[in-house]
Amino acid sequence: MVLSEQPGQFNPEEWVIDDNGKMALSIRIQGDRIFHEVSPYQTVEVFDTPGNGKMLTIDRMVMCTEADEAAYHEMIVHVPMLTHPQVKDVLVIGAGDGGTIRELVRHQEIERITMVEIDEAVVRASKQFLPTISSALEHSKLNLLIDDGINFVKNAADSSYDLVIIDSSDPVGPSEGLFTKSFYQDVYRCLRPGGVVTVQSESPIFHRNAFIDLNKCLKEVFGIESVHCYLVFIPMYPTGMWSLTYCSKAGPDPVNNLDVSKAEKIIREQDLRYYNADIHKAAFALPNFIQKMI
Amino acid sequence: MVLSEQPGQFNPEEWVIDDNGKMALSIRIQGDRIFHEVSPYQTVEVFDTPGNGKMLTIDRMVMCTEADEAAYHEMIVHVPMLTHPQVKDVLVIGAGDGGTIRELVRHQEIERITMVEIDEAVVRASKQFLPTISSALEHSKLNLLIDDGINFVKNAADSSYDLVIIDSSDPVGPSEGLFTKSFYQDVYRCLRPGGVVTVQSESPIFHRNAFIDLNKCLKEVFGIESVHCYLVFIPMYPTGMWSLTYCSKAGPDPVNNLDVSKAEKIIREQDLRYYNADIHKAAFALPNFIQKMI
Repeated sequence: MVLSEQPGQFNPEEWVIDDNGKMALSIRIQGDRIFHEVSPYQTVEVFDTPGNGKMLTIDRMVMCTEADEAAYHEMIVHVPMLTHPQVKDVLVIGAGDGGTIRELVRHQEIERITMVEIDEAVVRASKQFLPTISSALEHSKLNLLIDDGINFVKNAADSSYDLVIIDSSDPVGPSEGLFTKSFYQDVYRCLRPGGVVTVQSESPIFHRNAFIDLNKCLKEVFGIESVHCYLVFIPMYPTGMWSLTYCSKAGPDPVNNLDVSKAEKIIREQDLRYYNADIHKAAFALPNFIQKMI
Repeated sequence: MVLSEQPGQFNPEEWVIDDNGKMALSIRIQGDRIFHEVSPYQTVEVFDTPGNGKMLTIDRMVMCTEADEAAYHEMIVHVPMLTHPQVKDVLVIGAGDGGTIRELVRHQEIERITMVEIDEAVVRASKQFLPTISSALEHSKLNLLIDDGINFVKNAADSSYDLVIIDSSDPVGPSEGLFTKSFYQDVYRCLRPGGVVTVQSESPIFHRNAFIDLNKCLKEVFGIESVHCYLVFIPMYPTGMWSLTYCSKAGPDPVNNLDVSKAEKIIREQDLRYYNADIHKAAFALPNFIQKMI
């Protein structure tokens, strides 16, 4: 550990800083900025970092780094995939970097993936500069639409999907509508019976209110018994403690219905960096103070 | 989330910054510094913070904040206490803030606690300014020695303790010797058969090398089968992902020997903020990349 030789000297050309006024996570960048575009929705950038690989940011908030993106993408995908008995049709909202799609296509049972990303600049940046993350964005099972996810689910047919993944950024800008009850009512409607949703549900500490409000909203739509919050270590996100939430339309419980032999097969055959069967179950164990929050 | 209005402007009078050159965690402080002393070993300070309560730092590294100290202190104590069948004699090395002692005295079966802290300034600062953490430092079962923990275990009688807790700061300054094989050989010797040690074993990401080296060292001393790393979310430590390590002298495995009814009793009777029986087991589930590290 090296104490900063000049504490307080965080040159904005050398660090990306995420600050909520009480604490801040700073990640050092190196060399020239690799990608920069002010899209109609947000500012999309790619940087190189010493030690954490390349990093995608939106409005200077870290979306993913090559070093630790696997935790998020594996946990938002394999937890529902190894709980639901047979997923054929998947809808993904957001996920422009492609990491979620890369994890989905490891499962051969999936027949069709529809992905709805609002900002083509994110897809373009990731395809060009983050090839290990975006590697499945040209996959034959994928139908990639550049469109508004909120409108898409509003117009989607009833009971069309076995799995819906809400892989959104924080609830500011274009993602704000992904944190509303009306959106999740549409998601619920377009799920098949027994279908499952996993949702990026923020940090319980850094975004305490968004976390509490979203959990409350999901319980109103899916019913208390069908909503299960789980935790993932993501060091490059502020606080390192991130939540995802598993909800089902009267579908399987994610702890007791883990298909262990299927999980072991995929871990054996694929090079997963974070997910395993023990982690799947362990992630649903919540500290007492988080249980009280939700 | 609020983006820093003046990114890069981290005035060292307003923030405590822990920086390893690749990433940095900054915690905002408010008001005047509450305590400051340059002891013979290190600089000990107490600050107030907006949102995280009072905070103890050593050489400007965060030791604990009132907001999230419970995770660390509950997990380093209750995991061994609810695994070992009967702990009577406890040795604690470090732990000057007193949080570990507060958790130990919740267990009435303990007869004697010997605590060896090298720096009385830490004890004094915590007693005066962190009363909710230091509340048990006057407890009748506690023998508090201001002394060098390394020498203490060198001179300790064989087979004297059921539980030893190494509650140290990072391996710089006076804590450096707590990360060596000769120290752990002494710890092993002064454990009773079946005895248990829990060790603060650093962040697998932020202190990758210290984490790997310490795990290797512990396996050499205790044997591979008797060393079990576990993870705790500590948002006020850099990366938020912290490790503790449970080792035993041919003692019980911490996952399969958890005494669930005893755990439920203590959770019912005491106001624990983090620990519960599910968290106890879950903490030992390690992501694949961490399994590979150690």
